[in-house]
Amino acid sequence: MSAGPSNSDRASKVSLLKKVPALKDGDFTLAECTAILLYLSRKYNTPDHWYPSDIQKRARVDEYLSWHHANIRANAPKTMWIKLLIPLITGQPLPAEKLQEVMEGLFASLKQFEERFLQDKAFIIGSEISLADLVAIVELMQPVGVGCDIFEDRPRLLAWRRRVEDAVGKELFFQAHEMLLNIKELSNIQIDPQLKEHLTPLLMKMLK
Amino acid sequence: MSAGPSNSDRASKVSLLKKVPALKDGDFTLAECTAILLYLSRKYNTPDHWYPSDIQKRARVDEYLSWHHANIRANAPKTMWIKLLIPLITGQPLPAEKLQEVMEGLFASLKQFEERFLQDKAFIIGSEISLADLVAIVELMQPVGVGCDIFEDRPRLLAWRRRVEDAVGKELFFQAHEMLLNIKELSNIQIDPQLKEHLTPLLMKMLK
Repeated sequence: MSAGPSNSDRASKVSLLKKVPALKDGDFTLAECTAILLYLSRKYNTPDHWYPSDIQKRARVDEYLSWHHANIRANAPKTMWIKLLIPLITGQPLPAEKLQEVMEGLFASLKQFEERFLQDKAFIIGSEISLADLVAIVELMQPVGVGCDIFEDRPRLLAWRRRVEDAVGKELFFQAHEMLLNIKELSNIQIDPQLKEHLTPLLMKMLK
Repeated sequence: MSAGPSNSDRASKVSLLKKVPALKDGDFTLAECTAILLYLSRKYNTPDHWYPSDIQKRARVDEYLSWHHANIRANAPKTMWIKLLIPLITGQPLPAEKLQEVMEGLFASLKQFEERFLQDKAFIIGSEISLADLVAIVELMQPVGVGCDIFEDRPRLLAWRRRVEDAVGKELFFQAHEMLLNIKELSNIQIDPQLKEHLTPLLMKMLK
């Protein structure tokens, strides 16, 4: 019996961009988190609040999703690279200046997130949860996983997170973030030396 | 008679993010280029090919729009900052190393654009033009405006651009890009010294 394909082989067959997340639905394959969520909402005709048929509410979801890429998505996951993955792979100590730069970028994005999008509403587009909240929360849980609890001093952001947890269901919410919240265990794993050698110059470039 | 609001005052009233582009439709205001295009396509029920009702084709548009943000949109406009706006405002000479770094990022994005998205198709999602092509072309014309003709050595990319020009109509295409293609004239304008003083430290930080 031959060994089956590795996870990375499987992922590269599914995703056009060789990236996760990726969706395979019969012969149809799709990359990019927001495209996958929109596809699933259409295919399974999910409740209207996720991507409202009201043209103005739907535009608010689209507006957030577009802003998200260059702001929350561009900043929040960097905390994981700086605090965990880069030190783990390169063996280099954490440059405090770089972490500060990343945190400043993230804090500026969070300020806009609260003031421009969340305001005094329950969720990003109003009184009901939408895809915008889902896309936001999964990125904002990444800093938490590496010990940067961005919710701690932000009562408005924390209250929103609690509402998202309740809307999704607490059990499902923590199940979805389980690996992320235990990610520090990653620091015990062994990384293939060849992979380390290959990745180190690329990662050192990111640190410049 | 008091003077009317300045352009920037008007823009800040329209856009939630105080950014252009911004749309105002009655009392409804909307920021973000892709959100505006989607809103207009729904409101005016534009021909199906722009954002196909076919669930898989529509997902391909969404997939491109999502990828676009962290790749083409993140890289192409930087050429304008590096080659024109930063030298104009800071009065500092152009750092060749920085331009090279920006061009390397852009070239990597263009490679993916051609190989993963365009492939051997007429347009990004197949035989017809969609919002994905519009969003891509407006960013890719920015390097051209500052003398980095990225189409020159890329016959596949150039052929796609010609098809986009034909599909939009050459007159409208050049009308839409007129200011961009004459942007070097900007280097003759006078910038308010106070604005220069305010922007210079921010821009120098971008150059680090």
